Amino acid sequence: MNPDLPQDHPRNIIPELCRLYYSNGWMPGSGGSLSIKYGEEIYITPSGVQKERIQPEDLFVQTVEGEDISGPPSKKALRKSQCSPVFLNIYRLKKPGAVFHLHSKSSVMATLLAEDNTVHLSNLQMIKGIRKWSTGENHKFTDDVSIPIIDNTHREDELVDGMTKAMDNYPDTCAVLVRGHGIYAWGQTWEQTKLVCESYDYLFDIMLQLRTAGVREIRHT
Amino acid sequence: MNPDLPQDHPRNIIPELCRLYYSNGWMPGSGGSLSIKYGEEIYITPSGVQKERIQPEDLFVQTVEGEDISGPPSKKALRKSQCSPVFLNIYRLKKPGAVFHLHSKSSVMATLLAEDNTVHLSNLQMIKGIRKWSTGENHKFTDDVSIPIIDNTHREDELVDGMTKAMDNYPDTCAVLVRGHGIYAWGQTWEQTKLVCESYDYLFDIMLQLRTAGVREIRHT
Amino acid sequence: MNPDLPQDHPRNIIPELCRLYYSNGWMPGSGGSLSIKYGEEIYITPSGVQKERIQPEDLFVQTVEGEDISGPPSKKALRKSQCSPVFLNIYRLKKPGAVFHLHSKSSVMATLLAEDNTVHLSNLQMIKGIRKWSTGENHKFTDDVSIPIIDNTHREDELVDGMTKAMDNYPDTCAVLVRGHGIYAWGQTWEQTKLVCESYDYLFDIMLQLRTAGVREIRHT
Amino acid sequence: MNPDLPQDHPRNIIPELCRLYYSNGWMPGSGGSLSIKYGEEIYITPSGVQKERIQPEDLFVQTVEGEDISGPPSKKALRKSQCSPVFLNIYRLKKPGAVFHLHSKSSVMATLLAEDNTVHLSNLQMIKGIRKWSTGENHKFTDDVSIPIIDNTHREDELVDGMTKAMDNYPDTCAVLVRGHGIYAWGQTWEQTKLVCESYDYLFDIMLQLRTAGVREIRHT
Repeated sequence: MNPDLPQDHPRNIIPELCRLYYSNGWMPGSGGSLSIKYGEEIYITPSGVQKERIQPEDLFVQTVEGEDISGPPSKKALRKSQCSPVFLNIYRLKKPGAVFHLHSKSSVMATLLAEDNTVHLSNLQMIKGIRKWSTGENHKFTDDVSIPIIDNTHREDELVDGMTKAMDNYPDTCAVLVRGHGIYAWGQTWEQTKLVCESYDYLFDIMLQLRTAGVREIRHT
Repeated sequence: MNPDLPQDHPRNIIPELCRLYYSNGWMPGSGGSLSIKYGEEIYITPSGVQKERIQPEDLFVQTVEGEDISGPPSKKALRKSQCSPVFLNIYRLKKPGAVFHLHSKSSVMATLLAEDNTVHLSNLQMIKGIRKWSTGENHKFTDDVSIPIIDNTHREDELVDGMTKAMDNYPDTCAVLVRGHGIYAWGQTWEQTKLVCESYDYLFDIMLQLRTAGVREIRHT
Repeated sequence: MNPDLPQDHPRNIIPELCRLYYSNGWMPGSGGSLSIKYGEEIYITPSGVQKERIQPEDLFVQTVEGEDISGPPSKKALRKSQCSPVFLNIYRLKKPGAVFHLHSKSSVMATLLAEDNTVHLSNLQMIKGIRKWSTGENHKFTDDVSIPIIDNTHREDELVDGMTKAMDNYPDTCAVLVRGHGIYAWGQTWEQTKLVCESYDYLFDIMLQLRTAGVREIRHT
Repeated sequence: MNPDLPQDHPRNIIPELCRLYYSNGWMPGSGGSLSIKYGEEIYITPSGVQKERIQPEDLFVQTVEGEDISGPPSKKALRKSQCSPVFLNIYRLKKPGAVFHLHSKSSVMATLLAEDNTVHLSNLQMIKGIRKWSTGENHKFTDDVSIPIIDNTHREDELVDGMTKAMDNYPDTCAVLVRGHGIYAWGQTWEQTKLVCESYDYLFDIMLQLRTAGVREIRHT
């Protein structure tokens, strides 16, 4: 925590969320990355480090167009996240206030259990926590919420094309899953992005538990 | 914690329980709501916020009849919980000291595994932690404890009718489940309500684990 | 923590372990009870309270023969644990330094999956953490460790007879399981009792995971 | 924490990691052991103690060749870990900066689910967190990562021969599994070793979840 900055500055919020998500198992083994837009600046976690030990000064700051504004102290020898181009592409196309990339097991399992390239969710109350991005309204719990799955690539920045297509084909979604890899999710603010990540994780886990218990369908009544 | 209030004042207890239940996974993504009766006042969490960050001054206070007594500072722009009418209906019909509404996965899974509109529990010791509401005694572990499941509705306040019917039909219950949604549970005090929520969560999870392991029946001897 | 007492006094250790076991899910909804022998005094948790909030002065103190030495301040209106006679019976028959009673789900599931009245464990390294009570040596990992299961009873103190028979029939065991209820486990010291409880929980959970994954046998090579 | 030593000295890092791994369930019931190389000194946890209570002065210090450099205060009566010869053998053969031995359930389950003496991982992004030890590069996510499983032995130091053969036969691996027992894993530094342990745990758990859900194959596209 840097007490000279506002409590909700990305330099304070991102390290706090990293600790939370590490303890959740959503950022294991240096996996995952977080970004928050603050004015015209995008704050992004560095690459390949223990996420739960990130400090306020460790973040990279870029414009939406990818220009570098500032970075961590050079003596720390931190590297920019390979996720940066993926994040910036989403900021340009969707205009969110934050984009998170998580390696949560529930999201990976969702990609491995799906029979086609879409995860379908319905008849669960927590669906109401998910925004229908094209309209700005939240979903009804009876909606069929569809989240696209794209193929994984060897380099993170190679995901950009698949992501763009998925966002075009699923204009309502506020998340894209990457097969065997994890989730990219966004919201209007960091708070909304945090809430939507919790909702997806919860919903994917319910789907997994149902599958494991041998239940194939969620009854409405 | 507001040190000017008694330690067990709802303004101190509710934020503490919200942090606990968030870390438990019972209040994910702003889901769930807590209420405690204190004298003639009902304290209720606000709607749609990160439950683990609720402060003592964020609570709405109403009478059992639904009159507003006080609310959070207006600059916080908090909204009253959609659960309020459901809570107040339970306070009027059952005279409890607290009512909690949780989105625990175990309660949702219980509603999705049940073959009719009732969850049955028997031959488990933790049943003894559940009060037979009509008599005020606790259950024997060999009792058949039946918890009603009602259909979900698009708005939380539309649950009131289904809840009332379920409470009429199951006079012994101190909980009603909502399909694909969660649980409403109550007790004579907030401590008893906390204990009964832990008992249900534990029991539903045992039922799920048994189902997943392929066991259909709990032997008594 | 009472700083006027040694750090490892039961009045300090028991509340600390209660908080740990509550957060583990081993003492949910006021379930479970802990006891430690200190000189000629047995310290025992009170009945029916939130275990994670127990204070040093809340313990009941008895002799092995069941005489009351002291109790909590009377204004707290705490009740003696129904487990006391079960604990004291074990202290008389087995001469341990501590006896813990836990409602861990893994122990309940072990009783519900067993086909007869015994849980069998073998070919797992953590077996080495379990003492063969009759000889005082620890088990080899290839031993067949057998833990007896007794029927549950309506009152906790009615378990005494079944416990005595199980301890007679299984002289090597340092634990007795109660069907649908939980585990009683003991060790030479509180530290050993803590370790053996962790070993059993781990082993029972491995057995459950194997069963759920469809594996029936643990290969040695 | 010993404030007179650098923050990343093994006497500070090892107790901190022990507390983390105890709370993770990777060091239950005194199981598991950690070692870090610092200059020419190897710091190793003592045997048979509650790992979460280890203090900076409790570590044994040896050379790679097994000479004792220093040990805990003798009044503490701590014993050297039976893992020491296994650790030192790995330091001599693989030249890592740290070797961890964990009893994580995911690693034990991986040994019990494998049909031969190898665990295979592929098409999962977290594979990229695992070093191909023979080349020093990290794996591609499409690689077939193979981790050897060796038979358990009655004494920990009897594992040395099986470990040496496994390391010879699998020159790329940075971990060896022991059937029904746990994992030995290493990295260039303690940070890398921590990351690789998190990656393996995550991957083994995904494999278990897939198996339990009835999925036998991970699709690439």
